[in-house]
Amino acid sequence: MFWFPTYTPPDFSSPPLRDAPLVRFAVVERAGVAPEGYHATSIFPEYFHVAPGRWELLRESRMDCVVVQRPEGQLEAVEFRRLQVGDRVALGRGENGEDGIYVHAEAFCDEEGRGDKFSFRTRLTRETSFSIDYDEFYDLLSYERDHGRIVWVLGPALVFDRDARDAFCALIDRGYVHALLAGNALAVHDVEAAMFDTALGQEIYAKRLVPLGHYHHLDAINRVRAVGSLEAAMRQGLVTNGVMHAAWKRGISVILAGSIRDDGPLPEVVADVYAAQDRMRAVVRRATTIVALATQLHAIATGNMAPSYRVLEDGTVRPVFFYTVDMSEFAVQKLANRGSLTARSLLTNVQDFVVTVERGLRRREERATSPK
Amino acid sequence: MFWFPTYTPPDFSSPPLRDAPLVRFAVVERAGVAPEGYHATSIFPEYFHVAPGRWELLRESRMDCVVVQRPEGQLEAVEFRRLQVGDRVALGRGENGEDGIYVHAEAFCDEEGRGDKFSFRTRLTRETSFSIDYDEFYDLLSYERDHGRIVWVLGPALVFDRDARDAFCALIDRGYVHALLAGNALAVHDVEAAMFDTALGQEIYAKRLVPLGHYHHLDAINRVRAVGSLEAAMRQGLVTNGVMHAAWKRGISVILAGSIRDDGPLPEVVADVYAAQDRMRAVVRRATTIVALATQLHAIATGNMAPSYRVLEDGTVRPVFFYTVDMSEFAVQKLANRGSLTARSLLTNVQDFVVTVERGLRRREERATSPK
Amino acid sequence: MFWFPTYTPPDFSSPPLRDAPLVRFAVVERAGVAPEGYHATSIFPEYFHVAPGRWELLRESRMDCVVVQRPEGQLEAVEFRRLQVGDRVALGRGENGEDGIYVHAEAFCDEEGRGDKFSFRTRLTRETSFSIDYDEFYDLLSYERDHGRIVWVLGPALVFDRDARDAFCALIDRGYVHALLAGNALAVHDVEAAMFDTALGQEIYAKRLVPLGHYHHLDAINRVRAVGSLEAAMRQGLVTNGVMHAAWKRGISVILAGSIRDDGPLPEVVADVYAAQDRMRAVVRRATTIVALATQLHAIATGNMAPSYRVLEDGTVRPVFFYTVDMSEFAVQKLANRGSLTARSLLTNVQDFVVTVERGLRRREERATSPK
Amino acid sequence: MFWFPTYTPPDFSSPPLRDAPLVRFAVVERAGVAPEGYHATSIFPEYFHVAPGRWELLRESRMDCVVVQRPEGQLEAVEFRRLQVGDRVALGRGENGEDGIYVHAEAFCDEEGRGDKFSFRTRLTRETSFSIDYDEFYDLLSYERDHGRIVWVLGPALVFDRDARDAFCALIDRGYVHALLAGNALAVHDVEAAMFDTALGQEIYAKRLVPLGHYHHLDAINRVRAVGSLEAAMRQGLVTNGVMHAAWKRGISVILAGSIRDDGPLPEVVADVYAAQDRMRAVVRRATTIVALATQLHAIATGNMAPSYRVLEDGTVRPVFFYTVDMSEFAVQKLANRGSLTARSLLTNVQDFVVTVERGLRRREERATSPK
Repeated sequence: MFWFPTYTPPDFSSPPLRDAPLVRFAVVERAGVAPEGYHATSIFPEYFHVAPGRWELLRESRMDCVVVQRPEGQLEAVEFRRLQVGDRVALGRGENGEDGIYVHAEAFCDEEGRGDKFSFRTRLTRETSFSIDYDEFYDLLSYERDHGRIVWVLGPALVFDRDARDAFCALIDRGYVHALLAGNALAVHDVEAAMFDTALGQEIYAKRLVPLGHYHHLDAINRVRAVGSLEAAMRQGLVTNGVMHAAWKRGISVILAGSIRDDGPLPEVVADVYAAQDRMRAVVRRATTIVALATQLHAIATGNMAPSYRVLEDGTVRPVFFYTVDMSEFAVQKLANRGSLTARSLLTNVQDFVVTVERGLRRREERATSPK
Repeated sequence: MFWFPTYTPPDFSSPPLRDAPLVRFAVVERAGVAPEGYHATSIFPEYFHVAPGRWELLRESRMDCVVVQRPEGQLEAVEFRRLQVGDRVALGRGENGEDGIYVHAEAFCDEEGRGDKFSFRTRLTRETSFSIDYDEFYDLLSYERDHGRIVWVLGPALVFDRDARDAFCALIDRGYVHALLAGNALAVHDVEAAMFDTALGQEIYAKRLVPLGHYHHLDAINRVRAVGSLEAAMRQGLVTNGVMHAAWKRGISVILAGSIRDDGPLPEVVADVYAAQDRMRAVVRRATTIVALATQLHAIATGNMAPSYRVLEDGTVRPVFFYTVDMSEFAVQKLANRGSLTARSLLTNVQDFVVTVERGLRRREERATSPK
Repeated sequence: MFWFPTYTPPDFSSPPLRDAPLVRFAVVERAGVAPEGYHATSIFPEYFHVAPGRWELLRESRMDCVVVQRPEGQLEAVEFRRLQVGDRVALGRGENGEDGIYVHAEAFCDEEGRGDKFSFRTRLTRETSFSIDYDEFYDLLSYERDHGRIVWVLGPALVFDRDARDAFCALIDRGYVHALLAGNALAVHDVEAAMFDTALGQEIYAKRLVPLGHYHHLDAINRVRAVGSLEAAMRQGLVTNGVMHAAWKRGISVILAGSIRDDGPLPEVVADVYAAQDRMRAVVRRATTIVALATQLHAIATGNMAPSYRVLEDGTVRPVFFYTVDMSEFAVQKLANRGSLTARSLLTNVQDFVVTVERGLRRREERATSPK
Repeated sequence: MFWFPTYTPPDFSSPPLRDAPLVRFAVVERAGVAPEGYHATSIFPEYFHVAPGRWELLRESRMDCVVVQRPEGQLEAVEFRRLQVGDRVALGRGENGEDGIYVHAEAFCDEEGRGDKFSFRTRLTRETSFSIDYDEFYDLLSYERDHGRIVWVLGPALVFDRDARDAFCALIDRGYVHALLAGNALAVHDVEAAMFDTALGQEIYAKRLVPLGHYHHLDAINRVRAVGSLEAAMRQGLVTNGVMHAAWKRGISVILAGSIRDDGPLPEVVADVYAAQDRMRAVVRRATTIVALATQLHAIATGNMAPSYRVLEDGTVRPVFFYTVDMSEFAVQKLANRGSLTARSLLTNVQDFVVTVERGLRRREERATSPK
């Protein structure tokens, strides 16, 4: 059975928070530029002392933003580039109340004893055991399917392999995917596979390099552009299988963000990367679990805008889970170095990961519905 | 002394080219969509049989484009998204003249004997010897400084390290850099280093994590945004050292392409990735040597738009050299899998690479100018 | 259904082989030293012209050996260090009959058409599709279980994870493992898991670092040493599960080769590495499929001694399959650079690989035995 | 100027150490097997309460050993396999005096303030800045050359490249190398380079694959075996350059440990890996700085037997420095997971590392000797 770590709010009735001043604000004078001394957000829950004895928890946070107090009083984490003249921005860099701000870094910490002075295996590597991570992931996804929002962030490698592509479609079909974030390449390779059974000219199952196969890639893009959109290509039966198709069938929102590496692009791709960020964040705000598969760019981009917690409508504070699946220790460490400290990582090939997860969840469903 | 492999044009006087038909064209009917049966370009020199006995070599090519014949007759490699209604697009997928098109894949090949049936060490890895690559790189850069155009493609890691950052500035100062392609992060970390001596809050030499250092990153961006542009920041003396500053001093063109991972961004960053592609390609068209350091996204993006040859003003055809420096075999193979087959790769840390190259070139200059 | 590529013997009736001289031999004068001009073996089938018109195929070959003609006439691939004074060693370095020796590099080649001049995805990386490799691997193992000999080469990471360890035990139990090659660490971690449910002090499922867990490793070794052998530990019930135990139950031969990294060692470990090589080769000689999991040292060592073919008792020549499973492109390329050109590689985490393979084979068995 | 962190001994006059019991010992009853409850060593300084108020510091320690009290009273860290019947072995697993043993994990700790709740770049990756590491390494080596003992642990890749091989020879010639630990491959490739200018058949500078070059490897071994030893090969002028030759000229001790991957082997290689461990440890006992280049097996093996401190003859306790240079984060983490927690790592290609270090030390020497 699934179980969240409990959220422990700070103790505002004792020092130092009891005696903390109110948080101060300053007004934006130039659009897109914060006033000196602004406070920048972290991934953690943050409280602002807005009125004597009243500490307000920032909702829908993300790191590296400033905090704007809207005219009606509510606080909002805002990217610098979205600041408007007149916005009231919270000031102060102290994290422990000295500026009326409290960064609650250990909100979900379970107590754990001190370790030995000497021990092996304190670092995460490919040799770390991942059985329990799979099992906990099944628990989590089973819960989130019905009670949360699972956002997947996909690198193109996912659709290079037939079994992985099929498995991910099955995850969509069975309700484990609430939104998709990806780039042009993922969609292009997926559509090429639907049209030609290849990805970049190589068969996605038999791996033969098809003669003139490098045209498939371009033909797939060109045909979709010819009908005007991916959606039109679906409706007209040009694309009848794959990840994009499965998402379209279920009405799942898909954000395709542009990059300088793109061919095409497909019509739905968002060319302006900051507009893309805004659309991604609109999805991420509501996420309760995020899973990034085989993508460094999109994983870091999403990690940047994902907080470690979410405030539910009833006021409950719960963790947001962030998983990354990648082949290299470097990618994992890099994500941590960019501040996504709470990410959980599995080091493996995304193909195996997706196939295994699909099967694991299916088995769990079968057990749940089989007569005792 | 530096020496190019000679370009050997195809033999148009013998079959099959002698008897090849003329290339056919079809007209674009919907903007951004190529007519069925279009020909797509490769990285190799390609000839088009435009009039009986007249084969025209495509200039300023790049892969994955179509070939448009302009009203005045000249051929141009055009991205699908730039196609206009009425453009005449070359048709045909045969590579050996059957459609009036010849893909000249072995234009610069030196003859090399057949190998043994059995041999070790046919693959490039970190264990490959790189001494000769450095020496040839010095030869190449010494030549290109005065006779070519050297375009550098930079990943952010370059400026995380003081010595590497200084060395690259010295390369700029001494004329080895004609243009820079990078992203927001490279510029941001570089500016943070100029302002605070840190990158993402860590000192670029002493590596101490400075208290509240994660603000440096945001402060650097915010201050540049406050004055309106990087250029204004330079002029006003806010930024007085580093890669951006060295490039600005020498009037080197710098294209900063946006990505969804960006904070800020800095004002000069191009938000629309396809506009960024166009500006990058304007630089790459004129490049004779391209060096990509520690960046997968920008290296692949640039590789996509770089041909393997360039036609000089006097009609000479010379190779375009493409180097990548990366830590992992995966990055190297991935670039090859995306079609950048002619890239030469060094597997090492970009910090050491840049420091070593700067010293190697300096020594070479000293020898050249010292009295015998 | 499983299917071998057919072996095509060389054509000895046409030039150049028809007119080839007999192979010459010279006598060893110093033990362990080959005569000048010796012929060294490759991984390919090699024929020796031992009498006019009689070409003898070397059996149980391996690369980097010399070929000794025994008094009774048969040829044998012998490591330099095993040469005895008086041994007759084949001379000649020509590969095409000029010295009476023919290296048959394309014995199993299927014809394949020439490729395009330009194509994507010619290199093996983590992004290569592996679905078909799994399916072919199931076919292969199903066949080999009954008709061949499957030798597994194991790195220690296999037993760090509970599910992977259990899955491998199931493979043993169901007949897919005919011999095991590994080092001390694999056996030690496996025994630690049996005794304490940890590996190097970390629980193999729950991943908790157990207090004083670093003692488990040493305690496991010490207890086995106390009873004199792994076998005694099994018989006395000290070790009742795991890879070593499953192999012992089924009487599968296990060679544990020593290395300078070893703690302990366990009593069965072969301290002399050349004695270990001899024992490994005795196993490899009879192998028809070899699978190396997450080990570079043992994979290369085994690859060195594995030929690409085997001559069955009835004279049929069949390929020997060599698989490696590893996380990095470097390991794959390195193996190729050491001459193991015919290895097939899957890039993934060995944990997922083993779990997936076990399940795939189980399902295949179930289908085979279920009523239609 | 070079500077050690100061060693701070434990405070034995206060609780809990003041009130600690004496350490107990038990006698070995079976050779190679420790008594139940034995104490196992860590990499840290450890004190044993051998008589009331007398705490003895273990000298020449290493991890994963037991502590034997010799008849004359002194304590010795002994590998399990070297235990003799009758040896008195220290008992107790408490680390804080409760068993009369104190593990002094923070002997060299400088005080460092608490960090921020949120910060970037806490993990070591290829993107970490390494300039200061080079500079401190120069300081360290300059000091150690005259006052310490520098042991280098070499992977074969070092001699695949001409410039790196030359640079390492220069380090030997100029006194920065006091002992070498390596395997057969390093020596074989080095000797092949001396004889044929190739490594595994590829030229170490020009990188051409020489025809029949795969024989060079075997010929090099065979010729050395023919004269009986590497030393004889040097004396007879068969080998006149390279790492082995430079070491031989200066009388530096070289331990070549065997592995199952070896061809040959060269006569000096130690076939029994535990004998090799003993000989390696005899070298490591006296080391003050250890540098492991591009080898995982030998780095971990050496790390296993290297303590974090050394007691000099005058009783001063100083740190032992352990550096690893490798291309992958995995290797670094793996070393840490095996308990070598104090290793400092540089992530780069060993070729560049050695070339850079040689030049850096040379420049420093030149500055030191040039007239002011």
